[in-house]
Amino acid sequence: MATLKPLRDKVVVERSEAEEKTPGGIVLPDSAKDKPKQGTVVAVGSGRVMDSGETKPLEVKKGDRVLFGGYAGSEVKMDGRAYLIMSESEIFAIIESGKK
Amino acid sequence: MATLKPLRDKVVVERSEAEEKTPGGIVLPDSAKDKPKQGTVVAVGSGRVMDSGETKPLEVKKGDRVLFGGYAGSEVKMDGRAYLIMSESEIFAIIESGKK
Amino acid sequence: MATLKPLRDKVVVERSEAEEKTPGGIVLPDSAKDKPKQGTVVAVGSGRVMDSGETKPLEVKKGDRVLFGGYAGSEVKMDGRAYLIMSESEIFAIIESGKK
Amino acid sequence: MATLKPLRDKVVVERSEAEEKTPGGIVLPDSAKDKPKQGTVVAVGSGRVMDSGETKPLEVKKGDRVLFGGYAGSEVKMDGRAYLIMSESEIFAIIESGKK
Amino acid sequence: MATLKPLRDKVVVERSEAEEKTPGGIVLPDSAKDKPKQGTVVAVGSGRVMDSGETKPLEVKKGDRVLFGGYAGSEVKMDGRAYLIMSESEIFAIIESGKK
Amino acid sequence: MATLKPLRDKVVVERSEAEEKTPGGIVLPDSAKDKPKQGTVVAVGSGRVMDSGETKPLEVKKGDRVLFGGYAGSEVKMDGRAYLIMSESEIFAIIESGKK
Amino acid sequence: MATLKPLRDKVVVERSEAEEKTPGGIVLPDSAKDKPKQGTVVAVGSGRVMDSGETKPLEVKKGDRVLFGGYAGSEVKMDGRAYLIMSESEIFAIIESGKK
Repeated sequence: MATLKPLRDKVVVERSEAEEKTPGGIVLPDSAKDKPKQGTVVAVGSGRVMDSGETKPLEVKKGDRVLFGGYAGSEVKMDGRAYLIMSESEIFAIIESGKK
Repeated sequence: MATLKPLRDKVVVERSEAEEKTPGGIVLPDSAKDKPKQGTVVAVGSGRVMDSGETKPLEVKKGDRVLFGGYAGSEVKMDGRAYLIMSESEIFAIIESGKK
Repeated sequence: MATLKPLRDKVVVERSEAEEKTPGGIVLPDSAKDKPKQGTVVAVGSGRVMDSGETKPLEVKKGDRVLFGGYAGSEVKMDGRAYLIMSESEIFAIIESGKK
Repeated sequence: MATLKPLRDKVVVERSEAEEKTPGGIVLPDSAKDKPKQGTVVAVGSGRVMDSGETKPLEVKKGDRVLFGGYAGSEVKMDGRAYLIMSESEIFAIIESGKK
Repeated sequence: MATLKPLRDKVVVERSEAEEKTPGGIVLPDSAKDKPKQGTVVAVGSGRVMDSGETKPLEVKKGDRVLFGGYAGSEVKMDGRAYLIMSESEIFAIIESGKK
Repeated sequence: MATLKPLRDKVVVERSEAEEKTPGGIVLPDSAKDKPKQGTVVAVGSGRVMDSGETKPLEVKKGDRVLFGGYAGSEVKMDGRAYLIMSESEIFAIIESGKK
Repeated sequence: MATLKPLRDKVVVERSEAEEKTPGGIVLPDSAKDKPKQGTVVAVGSGRVMDSGETKPLEVKKGDRVLFGGYAGSEVKMDGRAYLIMSESEIFAIIESGKK
C-alpha cells in the first residue's frame, strides 16, 4: 500500500463524510459560503520553512481531528479513500473531544 | 462536548446577538458597509508565528469582549451556538466594561 | 461606560465634525477625491509588531489631533458619539496648534 | 497657526505653482502622463520604520526643493495655502540650485 | 545525451503516464479541477535561497515518486521523453511504496 | 565592440536559433503555451541582493547552455546578434552535454 | 543651473537620442514591445535601503552608459535636455565600450 509523505508544511487529511450527524459535535451551517469541513490528519510534513531559514514544526499531528476551510487542499484518492493535501495554514483548529 | 483549539493566531469568538440593545454600550451604525461586530473570545491559538521564526503570544485572551470586522472569520456551529474562527489581526479592539 | 482598548497598531479616533469652519486651522478642499479628515485620538494600541518580532510603540498618543485619509478606518458608535478605528499607518500627521 | 507634524516617512510639501516659468530651472513636459511636480518640503516625519524594527531618518529635510510624481500625496489646505502629504518614497530627487 | 541541472529550488520530474491504472496506488479523481499528477524526480537544484541568504537543501531527491499540482511546471522534451521543470514548492508529497 | 555588463541578478543570453534540430538534445514541444527556449550565457551580473543585504553569486556562468521560459527577458541586438537580458530566476536549468 | 540629487536608489539618466545609428554599438529592434533604451547616467542616489536597514550603494555611477526598459522612469526636462529618473532596478546592464 502506498502512503504519502507531505513536504514542508503540507498535511494529508482524510475527510469525515458523516460530520453533519455527529451528536454533541460540530455542526456546520448549510448557508455558509465557505463551509469549514472536518477531517482527521493522516500525515504531516517536516515543518514550515520561515524566511529566516528556520523550520518550525507543525502544530497538528497524525490522528488530530481538524477543522479547515471548505475549499482547502487538493483532492487525492488512495486505496479507495478520499484525502486532501493542504498547507497547515488552511487548518483553523483542532477539535478536541471534550472531557470538560 | 467537543471544544476547539485554534491554531497559531486563530481565535474562536462567540458572537453577541443582542449587541444593538446593550445600554451604555457600543452601538454599531446600520449604514456602515462593513459593520464591526461584538463577541466574546472562547479560545485562542498558541500565537502568531513571525517571519523571524519567533512566536508572539496573542493580545486577546479567553473571556475578552472584542470588536471585529463584520466579514471577519468563518462561521462554525457547536452544540447549537454560533462561533466564528478568525485571525487575531481581524480583531480591532477589546471592549472594556468601563469602570471610568 | 464601555471603552475600547485597540489591539496592536490600531487607534481609536473621534472625528471632528466642525472641521471645515475652524479659523486659522486646516481647511480640507471639497474637490479632493480622498479628502483627509481631522479627529482626536481617544485610545491607542500597544504597538506595531514588526516582522522581526519587535513591537514598536505608536507615534500618536491619546489627545493628539490627527489628519487621516477620508476612507480610513471602520466606524463605531459608543454612547452616542462616532468613532473610527484605524491602523496608525492610515494617519498622515499630527496637527499641532501653532504656538509659532 | 496650526502646523503639521508628519508621521514616520510622511513629508509635507508646498507645491510650487509657478514652476513652469522658472528660467534655467526644470521644465516639466506637458505631454507626460504622470508629470513630475516641484515643491518645497515644509515638514518631515521621524523616519521610515524598516521591517527589522530600525527607524531610518529621511533623506529630505525642511526647505529642500523636491521633484515628485504628479499623482503623489494627499492634498490639504492650511491658512489658504495648498500642501501635499506624501511618503518620502514618492519623492524622486532634491533640486539643487546649481552653483556649478 | 544531454541532461538538465536545475537551478536553485527547481526540480525535473518525469511524468508517470500510466498513473491511473497502478493497482493499490493513488488514483486521481477525474472531476477535480486541478488534478494532482504523479511523477519521478529526475534531477534537483542546489536548494532554495531564503531571504536571509541561507540556502535550504530540497526535501525531494532523485528517484522520489512525487505528487504535484496538475498545472505545475513547464514542459520539456529530451530524447523523446516528456519532463516537467517545477519549483519544489509545487510538489505536495512524496509517494512512498508502502511497506506498512 | 561594445559589451554588456549586467547589473545584480541579470544575465545576458544568446538564443540558440537551431535548437529544434539538435540531435540527442532537448526538443521543445510546439504545443506548450510558454515554450522554454535554449541559449548560451554571455555575461552575468554581480549577484542577487537579498533582503538581508547579502549578495548571493549567481549559479550560472559565462558559457553555460541554459533553458528558460519562452517569454523571459528583454530582447537586445548587438553587432547583428540577438541577445536576451533576463533575471537568473527566469532560468530553469543548465543543459549539460551528457557524458553519461 | 539647477541639478538633481536623486533619493535612495533613484538614478537620473540622459537618453541617447542617436542610439539607433551608433556603428558597432547596440541596435535595438523596432519590433520589441518594450524596447530597451540607452542613456548616460547623470546622477545617482545614496543607495538602496534594504529591509534589514542596511543601505547598499548602487552599481551604476555617473558617466556609465546604461541599457534600461523602454517604459522605465519618469521624464523631466532641465535646461532644454530630456532626462529620465528611474530606480536602479529598472536598469538592465552597463554598456562597456569594448576594448576586447
